[in-house]
Amino acid sequence: MASEKSIRDVAGVLRRDVAEMTTWAGSGHPSSCFSCAEVISTLFFHEMRYDSKDPGNPDNDEFILSKGHAAPILYSALHRAGCIKDDLKKLRKLKSPLEGHPMPRSLKWVKVASGSLGHGASIGIGMALAGRLQGRRYRTYVLLGDSEMAEGSVYEALQLAPRYNLENLCIIIDANRLGQRGETMIGQDLKRLAEGIKSFGWHAITVDGHDVPGLMKAFEEARKSGLPTAIIAETKKGKGVSFMEDKDGWHGKAMDKEQLEVALKELPKVKMPKIKIEKPDEVEVVKARSKKLEVSPYELGGMVATRMAYGKAITNLAVADQKVIAVDAEVSNSTKSEEVKKVRPGQFVEAFIAEQDMVGICLGLSKKGYNVFGSTFAAFLSRAHDQIRMSALSNANFTLNGSHAGVSIGEDGASQMGLEDIAMMRALPESIVFYPSDGVSTEKLVYLAAKTKGLKYIRTTRGKTPVIYSSKDEFKIGEFKILKQGKKDKVVLVGAGITLHECLLAHENLKKKRIESAIVDLYCVKPFEAKKFIEFVKKHGNKVVVCEDHYVEGGIGEMLAEELENAKIEISHLAVREIPHSGKSKELLEKYGIDKKAIVKAVKKVV
Amino acid sequence: MASEKSIRDVAGVLRRDVAEMTTWAGSGHPSSCFSCAEVISTLFFHEMRYDSKDPGNPDNDEFILSKGHAAPILYSALHRAGCIKDDLKKLRKLKSPLEGHPMPRSLKWVKVASGSLGHGASIGIGMALAGRLQGRRYRTYVLLGDSEMAEGSVYEALQLAPRYNLENLCIIIDANRLGQRGETMIGQDLKRLAEGIKSFGWHAITVDGHDVPGLMKAFEEARKSGLPTAIIAETKKGKGVSFMEDKDGWHGKAMDKEQLEVALKELPKVKMPKIKIEKPDEVEVVKARSKKLEVSPYELGGMVATRMAYGKAITNLAVADQKVIAVDAEVSNSTKSEEVKKVRPGQFVEAFIAEQDMVGICLGLSKKGYNVFGSTFAAFLSRAHDQIRMSALSNANFTLNGSHAGVSIGEDGASQMGLEDIAMMRALPESIVFYPSDGVSTEKLVYLAAKTKGLKYIRTTRGKTPVIYSSKDEFKIGEFKILKQGKKDKVVLVGAGITLHECLLAHENLKKKRIESAIVDLYCVKPFEAKKFIEFVKKHGNKVVVCEDHYVEGGIGEMLAEELENAKIEISHLAVREIPHSGKSKELLEKYGIDKKAIVKAVKKVV
Repeated sequence: MASEKSIRDVAGVLRRDVAEMTTWAGSGHPSSCFSCAEVISTLFFHEMRYDSKDPGNPDNDEFILSKGHAAPILYSALHRAGCIKDDLKKLRKLKSPLEGHPMPRSLKWVKVASGSLGHGASIGIGMALAGRLQGRRYRTYVLLGDSEMAEGSVYEALQLAPRYNLENLCIIIDANRLGQRGETMIGQDLKRLAEGIKSFGWHAITVDGHDVPGLMKAFEEARKSGLPTAIIAETKKGKGVSFMEDKDGWHGKAMDKEQLEVALKELPKVKMPKIKIEKPDEVEVVKARSKKLEVSPYELGGMVATRMAYGKAITNLAVADQKVIAVDAEVSNSTKSEEVKKVRPGQFVEAFIAEQDMVGICLGLSKKGYNVFGSTFAAFLSRAHDQIRMSALSNANFTLNGSHAGVSIGEDGASQMGLEDIAMMRALPESIVFYPSDGVSTEKLVYLAAKTKGLKYIRTTRGKTPVIYSSKDEFKIGEFKILKQGKKDKVVLVGAGITLHECLLAHENLKKKRIESAIVDLYCVKPFEAKKFIEFVKKHGNKVVVCEDHYVEGGIGEMLAEELENAKIEISHLAVREIPHSGKSKELLEKYGIDKKAIVKAVKKVV
Repeated sequence: MASEKSIRDVAGVLRRDVAEMTTWAGSGHPSSCFSCAEVISTLFFHEMRYDSKDPGNPDNDEFILSKGHAAPILYSALHRAGCIKDDLKKLRKLKSPLEGHPMPRSLKWVKVASGSLGHGASIGIGMALAGRLQGRRYRTYVLLGDSEMAEGSVYEALQLAPRYNLENLCIIIDANRLGQRGETMIGQDLKRLAEGIKSFGWHAITVDGHDVPGLMKAFEEARKSGLPTAIIAETKKGKGVSFMEDKDGWHGKAMDKEQLEVALKELPKVKMPKIKIEKPDEVEVVKARSKKLEVSPYELGGMVATRMAYGKAITNLAVADQKVIAVDAEVSNSTKSEEVKKVRPGQFVEAFIAEQDMVGICLGLSKKGYNVFGSTFAAFLSRAHDQIRMSALSNANFTLNGSHAGVSIGEDGASQMGLEDIAMMRALPESIVFYPSDGVSTEKLVYLAAKTKGLKYIRTTRGKTPVIYSSKDEFKIGEFKILKQGKKDKVVLVGAGITLHECLLAHENLKKKRIESAIVDLYCVKPFEAKKFIEFVKKHGNKVVVCEDHYVEGGIGEMLAEELENAKIEISHLAVREIPHSGKSKELLEKYGIDKKAIVKAVKKVV
């Protein structure tokens, strides 16, 4: 255990590092680092237990820098703690892992990307839940800024953590009063802030954030409180540098060389003390149960909603592997993830109607080794777009499911119809997008997602569709299925999900009119193996009619247009092009021109 | 003023209507309507002042059904109040305006679409702010469900309303204990809920939500409290029908005919009482100031960041027209909307770091006649994707600005780079997407957005770019600008924003290599006039190299691929295809293959 003085000295060292790093970089947020120097030094050199040689030690206490713009002080702390060797002088340089905001791609000690505010607490819930599930004793610490408290996502986490009795979760709010452009919404009313947090069921401690003994005591109190705890650290932005301390206009601004010189004179010239960081106790954990994965007996021609098949498939996975967890935003009886809850209640997390929190929890759980499936209506995933975006930047490894896709949901109307989800999920670096059309392909794609690394999306349909595949069919990433083909094909019909079945009906109708057509099931929207597809189309009429239950922008049709752009293939694209109305599923498919009739019409036009 | 008994009777009538409507429709949420029958009857037949013949009366009290699934009882109330004549029996039918969830496209009495939860309070803030600004006396009522309180967006609004002293805003929480799949997060801990709400600075009243006199008193207390007020109405889901009341498993479920028969026997058989709805007093408002719109004197070749030009342009608009309002999510010194604050502080709304709230406020203000410009980083607009989506479904009429687009922002890194915003904004029905490249085009497009109805998006760049247009240049929706063209053109270079300038540099470089190229500025990404573009390309080499600072999916290149799919034009597409790193702007444009060098290389490959 380090002395109070040495922790104070570390804070001084970190401030000097940060001052120099940001001036060298010519940009960054020194003032936001100075305010939390004592919090960081107390955490990294006194409170937290971790193996500084092994970021992957599963018993390490976890730290999430939710106020990601304070990255320089995190890097300095990791450097001074012996975790990283990277040259602090290279902050924000193209070839340095010390990026402007923390990125796990660059540093193993950074588990999740931050820089968009208000994400940390939810991710912390996921990590704390994982610790509980594994029976480990690590604690999860999340450092937030006070400006960040304006983000609703923080309140989603504040509400949920006490419900799960996460006494292993501690958030610290660096209440430095000043935001990017003046006083924060909270300002100095920290009493009210503490009251609000307590009203959700947290333990809350307000402390002078520059007082090391006070902080040490607060962290101890948090550990012993038996509740998730918020430490509100009253601090000064720019602390330690006269012209910056508690002064407006210093957010996200590095000092110039002259200012740095003055600052380095004002900041105490301290030597880095020798501090031994306590390693965590190794906890013997029971190995997660696993057994053979069941295959559901779907009968060809039977009617099954893909959302039902999704629920069944993740339940099979959960039964086979204790590391599989389902998270849902209070619609599990619609997405059918409730099946997991029924059979394996310990492997189900209810996030209530808080989609941002749900995705953050998925990210946190997955970073601690769980194979996570998060589900809600496809439309409502848009609520968590930023969390999904940041998960992609975190090289996340979990699966999201969006149910009730498209106008085919019917009477509930436009607000419940996911019509932009493919666009959203495609526009994430390295994402994988599946869109199954029947029970078998759903199960196979869920199993494929379970064993594939990355951020995966599975789109499901509300209504029942006939089973068209058998258990022998194989589904691979990047590929597609050919359902119909012949030598006289004039056109290739491309569908996915609900529209694949419209393609099948159109095919029969066209056959009667003596127009032969091939059918492709585009179950993997991203990535897409264009070469193979182009070869197939070239041999089958060199024309494509693609039909999707999605807006025209960013969907399957645009993906095909992009992939086929120089292939000299004629494409006709059927998609939803206006705000849809309530009505019967069939009526809507017809009204918005994505049913069998529309396909037949489009084919007649192109052939 | 109606008697307590008659208000109770109205609640009975509404319940009977809802029971029948939903059974006729075969779906819907009767149990969620029954819980709020007294709240709705007290509001619509006692508390609220409105002209039942004129939904557009600017002095009408406003009502937002944030728990949009209770649509049937809203329709019934509007019907019984004489506001609408539509056949209640046609609920959820394709040709009926009585959609599954409320849609303004279908009913003038519905100002905003609901059905995705947690949006109402923010929109209410916008409407309440508008009332204050106009000096009108209308009040804004928002009805929320208790499940909905899990959504963080509600807390963004709870935090902000007291800061603006919105005593003309009243939210009612229909605390019926049961969510979609069991007890809500709050359950019955309404005391804690009230404490939490009070901690934000609200007046909070807890009341038996089925007790009409109690509700009448609560609304009166709210009116006189001088604070934004939350009325927590303790209710029973399914109230009035024995087999439904306070019973789980009845969310989103209509009764069958037999159940309806039983229900209609249990529900009191009351006649609709004759109630005169009090009209609002007409308030004489001062006509908004307006004067001639200034044109900024940009000099050809001068260096101006488009975000700066955006700030200047909206400030010019605000000075010229008092109806113009800027809203920002605490980054106004970056987006430059702070210019409005400096010159017209009364026309600037600070939403703090709460993007969802910001968009809700934009929607609320715009629905009350303001010309609103909401701004934050393009990346952080993803935080409000669902609010933007619901704004589109609300036929919204405001402009969003996303600044700091693309990798060109440099050192701050991936979390701050808007690289999916075009995909997101394009995939909204009827949206308009502008992407200006210099000071002049920014100003012109801002002015164009100001006079164009609909949901508009303007993407701006962090760094400075040279002014390339003069005040005589015209910019129209759907069109594009030709910057370079010649008879020997081998290729058309297409850029927008930052990449247009890379196209200009590439053009010069290619010229030296004796490769002539045309240049198109694709300042209007949506809608896009493909015919004219195709004609131009056909005459200028029939090849396109399109370069964008955006992910490949859903961006400008895919839009072009879609629009040009059968035009037999060769396209080469340069875009960001991986998670970008921190670094200098120029370094990143080069690393991700969207700079002049990459354009030259692509041209050499295609010609």
